[in-house]
Amino acid sequence: MNRCFHIKDEIRILGIDDSALTGERILIVGAFFRGGMWLDGVMSSYLTRDGMDATDSIMSMIRSSKHFPQVRIIMLDGVSYGGFNPVDIVRLHEGTGIPVVVLMRKYPDLEMIRKALCHLPQGDERMAIFKRAGEIVEVKTADPLNPVYIQCSGIGFREAARIVRLSSTRSNIPEPLRVAHLIATGIVLGESRGKA
Amino acid sequence: MNRCFHIKDEIRILGIDDSALTGERILIVGAFFRGGMWLDGVMSSYLTRDGMDATDSIMSMIRSSKHFPQVRIIMLDGVSYGGFNPVDIVRLHEGTGIPVVVLMRKYPDLEMIRKALCHLPQGDERMAIFKRAGEIVEVKTADPLNPVYIQCSGIGFREAARIVRLSSTRSNIPEPLRVAHLIATGIVLGESRGKA
Repeated sequence: MNRCFHIKDEIRILGIDDSALTGERILIVGAFFRGGMWLDGVMSSYLTRDGMDATDSIMSMIRSSKHFPQVRIIMLDGVSYGGFNPVDIVRLHEGTGIPVVVLMRKYPDLEMIRKALCHLPQGDERMAIFKRAGEIVEVKTADPLNPVYIQCSGIGFREAARIVRLSSTRSNIPEPLRVAHLIATGIVLGESRGKA
Repeated sequence: MNRCFHIKDEIRILGIDDSALTGERILIVGAFFRGGMWLDGVMSSYLTRDGMDATDSIMSMIRSSKHFPQVRIIMLDGVSYGGFNPVDIVRLHEGTGIPVVVLMRKYPDLEMIRKALCHLPQGDERMAIFKRAGEIVEVKTADPLNPVYIQCSGIGFREAARIVRLSSTRSNIPEPLRVAHLIATGIVLGESRGKA
């Protein structure tokens, strides 16, 4: 079921990214933003490298936050956190009541993902979660040579694309994801690097 | 010696804050900003609670950063990090070549600080570092009821006040310090809280 809503420039967005794979416990960071402009809060939690706890870990981080009632949209950087720990975006939406948008810089190669997953326990279950994220749609950004790709749960592609564009104030990546990435790498590696 | 420079709206500022005192090793976070608008990088390090390593720890975090050549000003949230670990702002300026501005929400009570320090080893040395931060000057912010107070090394009060005001885009605290505080508390406590 898709929620229909009026989109304000200052729509509250929670962007979530993980850190580099430096151990078994992987730091995840949530950057709580007003649209594409202001960081209003930071939250963090941990999940297991190549584990199966990403959905529960992210869900409980959000639900226990003081910002939970204000978050209008959750943005993820792909559906795979801490290696191959998959996020079930349908369950994340249903368990929080908040629409979820997954953002990717490239169209994912599902065949390559399938091959990687078959070396891990519960490979079929992981693949099913990947597939549950559903259709992948291209979104044009301000940079015509660099579109991004999204998957959605609880929101239509058209509305999701509008939110992606309005929050991409600094690059072709929504600011909440860009900043969550800077924080996660800056804390775990001592200095931020790479791109969300 | 004060450096004279042209102040651009996008002057690169490094704001540094510490986290809550949850153990002996205290996380410090540097938020590297363009003026009061964009977070361009995050760095982090650790110092000892109530130790004497704050100056060296901050100095080496900055000098080892890829952003080091770009940082035009360092902003500190008071001169005491990780409890009563004092930052020598004269030495920090001399060791980095970058001017330092210390920001405080309240005029500090030096007599209370002196009393607290006498319970710690090297109390006199700590007090000397506090005093070396020099004159304290009030800066009017956009909120007339909430001025802030600054100390400076390597920059005049007038220029420092201009940079404080131009970077205080979201509150009466410069954005690099506000965001460094959100990150440090968000990582260590699981959720950001309080004010820089």
